[in-house]
Amino acid sequence: MAPTPAMAAPSAGAPLERTVIDRRDLRPDDVLIDIAYAGICHSDLHQAAEEWGSAIFPMVPGHEIAGTVAAVGSDVTAHRVGDRVGVGCMVDSCGECEPCRAGTEQFCVRGNVQTYNGVGFDGENTYGGYSKQVVVKDSFVCRIPEGIGLDVAAPLLCAGITTYSPLNQWHAGPGKKVAVVGLGGLGHMGVKIAAAMGAEVTVLSQSLKKKEDGLRLGASDYHATSDEATFDVLKGRFDLILNTVSAEIPVDAYLSLLRPGGAMVNVGAPGTPLSYNAFSLIAGNKSLAGSMIGGIPETQEMLDFCAEHGIGAEVEVIAADQVNEAYERVRASDVRYRFVIDTATL
Amino acid sequence: MAPTPAMAAPSAGAPLERTVIDRRDLRPDDVLIDIAYAGICHSDLHQAAEEWGSAIFPMVPGHEIAGTVAAVGSDVTAHRVGDRVGVGCMVDSCGECEPCRAGTEQFCVRGNVQTYNGVGFDGENTYGGYSKQVVVKDSFVCRIPEGIGLDVAAPLLCAGITTYSPLNQWHAGPGKKVAVVGLGGLGHMGVKIAAAMGAEVTVLSQSLKKKEDGLRLGASDYHATSDEATFDVLKGRFDLILNTVSAEIPVDAYLSLLRPGGAMVNVGAPGTPLSYNAFSLIAGNKSLAGSMIGGIPETQEMLDFCAEHGIGAEVEVIAADQVNEAYERVRASDVRYRFVIDTATL
Repeated sequence: MAPTPAMAAPSAGAPLERTVIDRRDLRPDDVLIDIAYAGICHSDLHQAAEEWGSAIFPMVPGHEIAGTVAAVGSDVTAHRVGDRVGVGCMVDSCGECEPCRAGTEQFCVRGNVQTYNGVGFDGENTYGGYSKQVVVKDSFVCRIPEGIGLDVAAPLLCAGITTYSPLNQWHAGPGKKVAVVGLGGLGHMGVKIAAAMGAEVTVLSQSLKKKEDGLRLGASDYHATSDEATFDVLKGRFDLILNTVSAEIPVDAYLSLLRPGGAMVNVGAPGTPLSYNAFSLIAGNKSLAGSMIGGIPETQEMLDFCAEHGIGAEVEVIAADQVNEAYERVRASDVRYRFVIDTATL
Repeated sequence: MAPTPAMAAPSAGAPLERTVIDRRDLRPDDVLIDIAYAGICHSDLHQAAEEWGSAIFPMVPGHEIAGTVAAVGSDVTAHRVGDRVGVGCMVDSCGECEPCRAGTEQFCVRGNVQTYNGVGFDGENTYGGYSKQVVVKDSFVCRIPEGIGLDVAAPLLCAGITTYSPLNQWHAGPGKKVAVVGLGGLGHMGVKIAAAMGAEVTVLSQSLKKKEDGLRLGASDYHATSDEATFDVLKGRFDLILNTVSAEIPVDAYLSLLRPGGAMVNVGAPGTPLSYNAFSLIAGNKSLAGSMIGGIPETQEMLDFCAEHGIGAEVEVIAADQVNEAYERVRASDVRYRFVIDTATL
């Protein structure tokens, strides 16, 4: 066991504080990673506050991890010391069920092992990326290609794959009109990736406050959803709507923005049920879908795609001691567009 | 103008009665059809009772039409006198918009012309298949291949294409597990077509009353949705659920029956909004979709497919004077599985 400095929430909703945790000794298929940066995902806040059901404390959040390989187990061949690597939301899965064999480990029948606030198949609690080192099974470690800074790469491991996967699966690309609902941590990645895929991108945001950013990030159009005229003007416009907001939305109104055969894919989920009219789907052969992160092969594909297109997240790098302040600002939507912890400050 | 006997509802909800209507003189691109059989679709009842918004009376229902060509206009080359043909829910569309050019005339931007209870681009009301003859623009007339009786072919023009299209678009086929919800006019076609496509078919019906029929029609499994255990037993089973019932359903419970990546497609719509949790879609990359009949090219493809696989509807042939009694029985779900009017009795 090796001790490593970390930031942990000692109990539900308590401020994060400095601590030291133990990382396991390397197994033959393990990779020891020197973490350089860890992104702050909104789900970190939810889990640290125990808003998503029973959680494990102390909790070291962080599932947007970028760093370099410090050591490898005896059987590891895919990664070498010094490699630039990343770890996302999962650190293990059964590897044998149909979803695992299909490379969609997020749907492992046995349940995948979450990077933090989870319990490994060995019965040990998992601790995330707000720390200086982490030990991860080799097959859950992705390569970060040269050409993406580790700071802007970290958020790709959750925000990147969460938006890349639905854009990829639902065929965003040349000739397609894509709307991204919400310009936050997820949305800003959705805009960059959809634009890089060659789609014509429109941002649908509550206000026009971030319009300049949206256009700079790759959107060609930007509308405020608080303006009712938006829903008239854009009626029947889009092939694909990527909804990144967790707030409740008027589903039928958004479906009316789709062309025949179009789809709205949700990656954010409100806590309350949503309501829709079946006719909104039938009249136009439309789809309402969901998407959850992405499997490991698709995560690697996303990193390669982002490197090829020079895409990283827009980040504000902070020191470990600023984490609690950053949490407050994330709750207030006051970040453009992702906080990333410089773990050298731990 | 040529007079032809028909059955019409003189006003909303009134019993249908014998009448004589005029069919227009043939235009160069028109086909005159001697109707042999007309299916009774549940939507005929809704519209004759003015349950779906303002309707036009007198109303001659019927959009499941099978017969033979009696005459053709001077420019018609695709159909010849004596050909076996069918007409479904539409008799015209603009032909110029993107959906029309894509062969999805049901989504014509100008609005397609419904076979009855509609108004043509010439401003004339349309009258449907409960009559001895009909005049239809050639491009909305489909060929009924030899090998399907005209009586069992008639319902294919609505119930057939309504189920074929989503099964086709969502890739029902070998290796796929398909559930058909509801074993009525639509559902029984869904079972036959999905089985012919090579899928493994399960019927989900309120009770086990029609189990023997379901298995005979091609299902390999049959479960009662009134039995709560059904939702445990079948959890995560299906690639595709074709929901043919118009009643309100517990959407999340049905979504739980899908495998990762699976879809539930609705072809029946309740009048009230449905409720779902976004997480039911996200956890499993699932889709909730709708499908509305099908375009003319796909309708022809469906008829060819049905002929190739020896598929027709299960029908109870009735005389014109039995139509009102048949309507009562349709309302009571007392038909296996489609009434078809023998128009020789008009």
